[in-house]
Amino acid sequence: MSVTIRTILEDLMGTMEQIDETVDTLKPGNPETVITGMITAFSATQYVVERAVAMNANLLITHEGVFYSHHETSEWLEGDPVYLAKRSLIERSELAIFRYHDYWHRHQPDGIMVGLLRELGWSAYVDEQQATASILTIPAMTVSEAAEYIKRKLSISYVRVAGDLSQTCRHVGILVGYRGGGTMAIPLFNQHHLDLIIAGEGPEWETPEYVRDAVHQGRSNALIMLGHAESEAPGMKYLAEVLAEKYPMISTCFIAEQPIYQLV
Amino acid sequence: MSVTIRTILEDLMGTMEQIDETVDTLKPGNPETVITGMITAFSATQYVVERAVAMNANLLITHEGVFYSHHETSEWLEGDPVYLAKRSLIERSELAIFRYHDYWHRHQPDGIMVGLLRELGWSAYVDEQQATASILTIPAMTVSEAAEYIKRKLSISYVRVAGDLSQTCRHVGILVGYRGGGTMAIPLFNQHHLDLIIAGEGPEWETPEYVRDAVHQGRSNALIMLGHAESEAPGMKYLAEVLAEKYPMISTCFIAEQPIYQLV
Repeated sequence: MSVTIRTILEDLMGTMEQIDETVDTLKPGNPETVITGMITAFSATQYVVERAVAMNANLLITHEGVFYSHHETSEWLEGDPVYLAKRSLIERSELAIFRYHDYWHRHQPDGIMVGLLRELGWSAYVDEQQATASILTIPAMTVSEAAEYIKRKLSISYVRVAGDLSQTCRHVGILVGYRGGGTMAIPLFNQHHLDLIIAGEGPEWETPEYVRDAVHQGRSNALIMLGHAESEAPGMKYLAEVLAEKYPMISTCFIAEQPIYQLV
Repeated sequence: MSVTIRTILEDLMGTMEQIDETVDTLKPGNPETVITGMITAFSATQYVVERAVAMNANLLITHEGVFYSHHETSEWLEGDPVYLAKRSLIERSELAIFRYHDYWHRHQPDGIMVGLLRELGWSAYVDEQQATASILTIPAMTVSEAAEYIKRKLSISYVRVAGDLSQTCRHVGILVGYRGGGTMAIPLFNQHHLDLIIAGEGPEWETPEYVRDAVHQGRSNALIMLGHAESEAPGMKYLAEVLAEKYPMISTCFIAEQPIYQLV
């Protein structure tokens, strides 16, 4: 039985309330194409595109954009050699690329969050699933122990921590991706009496500066920043599992990338 | 001879073209107050406020805001205990706080950039001073050597690097603060044939993803992210030196903070 890209897109978005302004588009790609293989990834890096083609896949589903901007503007890249080489590779490859960002986050519950919680082994500890955060009660551990646990579970080599490493945490808020900024993250501390917030990425002058002041005031608030990809890649890995189970006739897998930064 | 806050504000902004929409305001504070001592800092953290008061200063000049947001909105913090305790401390202290952000960046040349270049010992290597970046030709060194040099000069314990550590770099672009994002940083690589960009902070899915693709294509582009405060604090330290020289009758100093994150 052949499956077209249209079938997958309808599956991923069709049953959900329509989002009028969304970055979730098929670009490039023709919905009537019969799928030979599907790849999911956090981002359509050049390495991921090459691997997808080598694996004979013709549909790549990624969370972030292809050309280094959320809204996929590219006028500012005109004439750039890296941009031109990557665009040319994608055109030649005839790979269809579908961005699955807004709908996957809007899924009930947020597919990216589900993937991260599963990878952490913390799904059973969720008290409240909010639109942009999960509130958990975990077994009591220190911030340092939580950081080591997370590193082991997500196979990451470091996390950035604000606050007191020896503080105990039990009431935890998790925000994926770029939701670690002040207005989304900071109010959760007080509203849910959180000891610890775990987030992907956010401006350095916002949430960590709040935590610095809180600790200086003698309060028990801490922050663990995972990195953007580190917090969201598990949700794209989870998507590959969901699709592989629903479409066993199609070869489907998740491609992992190297960490975006190394420490020196 | 007594000097009022008004004198300092006129000195810092009066000779420059007026910026209509600016975060650079005196809040709290009365311009007619006679200055007993001046402190400069990257951010008005609770520790910095307490130290300023203990040092008998009554004017604190900072680059970033007091309450964890660039535009200093605070409605979303109403009822927050950390916010309330800090606001109350500032009210009781009668410390005036002046935010010197936009005007210091607009200064010719950008005062924050001057401070960073001085601290790096690279002022003589500048080929072009742009509004939001400096273009330099430095003595040839590897990315790894550049990272170690920067860490030593800025007294920071780590930097985050994208690209190949063994690559040689000579043509370098520097962008302070949050100017490490894609549209500001990426075009510089091609326009100025840069090997290396050194920046403060920027979204993880922008500039480092470009560098990842560039390196995968065999190009020699690298990125060193210093951290936001790490890139801008030297500019506020430099401001203290400038003010101390101009106003020898006032006790003036820069207060350094601990790094906002520790690595685990």
